[in-house]
Amino acid sequence: MNDRILVAPTDLLGDGVFETIDLRESGPWLLDQHLSRLASSAEILGLPAPPLPSLRDRIAATTEVGALRIIYTRDVLHVSVSPVPPGVLRERHDGIRVISADQGVSVRRPPWSVSAAKSLSYAENFAARRWAARLGADDLIWLSTEGYVREAPTASVVWLAGGELCTVPPAEAGILPGITAAHLLSLAPSLGLAAAERMVTRPELAAADAIWLASSLRGLAEVVALDGESRPRSRWTPRLLAALGFPAALSAVPDERGQH
Amino acid sequence: MNDRILVAPTDLLGDGVFETIDLRESGPWLLDQHLSRLASSAEILGLPAPPLPSLRDRIAATTEVGALRIIYTRDVLHVSVSPVPPGVLRERHDGIRVISADQGVSVRRPPWSVSAAKSLSYAENFAARRWAARLGADDLIWLSTEGYVREAPTASVVWLAGGELCTVPPAEAGILPGITAAHLLSLAPSLGLAAAERMVTRPELAAADAIWLASSLRGLAEVVALDGESRPRSRWTPRLLAALGFPAALSAVPDERGQH
Repeated sequence: MNDRILVAPTDLLGDGVFETIDLRESGPWLLDQHLSRLASSAEILGLPAPPLPSLRDRIAATTEVGALRIIYTRDVLHVSVSPVPPGVLRERHDGIRVISADQGVSVRRPPWSVSAAKSLSYAENFAARRWAARLGADDLIWLSTEGYVREAPTASVVWLAGGELCTVPPAEAGILPGITAAHLLSLAPSLGLAAAERMVTRPELAAADAIWLASSLRGLAEVVALDGESRPRSRWTPRLLAALGFPAALSAVPDERGQH
Repeated sequence: MNDRILVAPTDLLGDGVFETIDLRESGPWLLDQHLSRLASSAEILGLPAPPLPSLRDRIAATTEVGALRIIYTRDVLHVSVSPVPPGVLRERHDGIRVISADQGVSVRRPPWSVSAAKSLSYAENFAARRWAARLGADDLIWLSTEGYVREAPTASVVWLAGGELCTVPPAEAGILPGITAAHLLSLAPSLGLAAAERMVTRPELAAADAIWLASSLRGLAEVVALDGESRPRSRWTPRLLAALGFPAALSAVPDERGQH
């Protein structure tokens, strides 16, 4: 869909918020969580509260399948649907090669920080991914100046270590709360796993049994190489994707070579 | 002017660049420098080179007076003119009360950083100014995690210390090169002052004879209070504003109470 919006020049300064939702045959996935985060993002940016009930009704009535995007600024509320990019499906299936890099940012965010909001100011996120691509990687993981894993430019970091499914604590790491990651951790007990939020360094992460980047469209993309070092595929990847309701037809994914 | 632009939803993700130029009776101020920075910002973001000759011709032919804004994304090149906000004139005249705050960012920017570009991702800049306003300040000065002065959300920091007019070295501090500040420093010899780029801590800045925030519309706004501590007005403020070609009718500004 190539729809266009009429905006004021000042709407182009990144001072708004957005959400991306996976529109499934069964309906919009985790809609309430995404609307709730839209509202908290708006509050962080000092925007008026978005009209959640009418947004919910409108989105719940959609029969389309694909990627739904909500954009909300002081001036604009726009909902559009586009196809899920083919690269997303490939990364879910094949995994991704990831590099880690110091972001030059402390986990201690200043009081005005918009780090916990899904703001429209994504220039740095796009630039970081372009940089990773130039180095031959599919994505990158941002480390804080203190050496802690924060997040990826468009995803949360999830890992499995000794039967414990982990992600980064958003408040402590000064990052966006990841909806897919939080939902996955809530499912951990039903899969026979514990769940925990942990601050983790890069060496600790590299020692994990498996690492994934979690986001609403990709679901989980398994990290098959970290900083050039290959990692064995985990038998948990198809199980976790199935638990998240993503199609299980991942024939190329070996399921018994994982470490856990 | 309340013109509107037709854009794709993805144009609203802050992945573009902009410039703001003071349109004077005598023509667009420092036009070549602003166009040159537009081009270098675009290069940092991996955008195609903007069409500088046609932009220059178009802007140079403008007979309007006010604030000219150029917005440039992968999809949009938009030029608009609006009145200079009245607050800008007041701040140039009365000075500003400023607070300093740790930005949680190192001066060592990562290789993909867009800090040296005037990108459209201004959510953090706006949020910081809203935070300062809630604390009763007019603006704020960002400090790095190492304790160095970086910049203000929409201005460069300039100060006078012992006959030396100083600003922060953009590359070393990982900040946007300020056009107004650089131009002012180039005029220093004609005013009997030396000029230098210096990394400076907050205590060193506070010990300066005078401090200003420099930007294309405000020109110079003198810091009349830093972190709640009042500072005497400098007799250099009207002289420097005159050197920059801003109207000199600042009757309320005492001109012999300054420290230097």
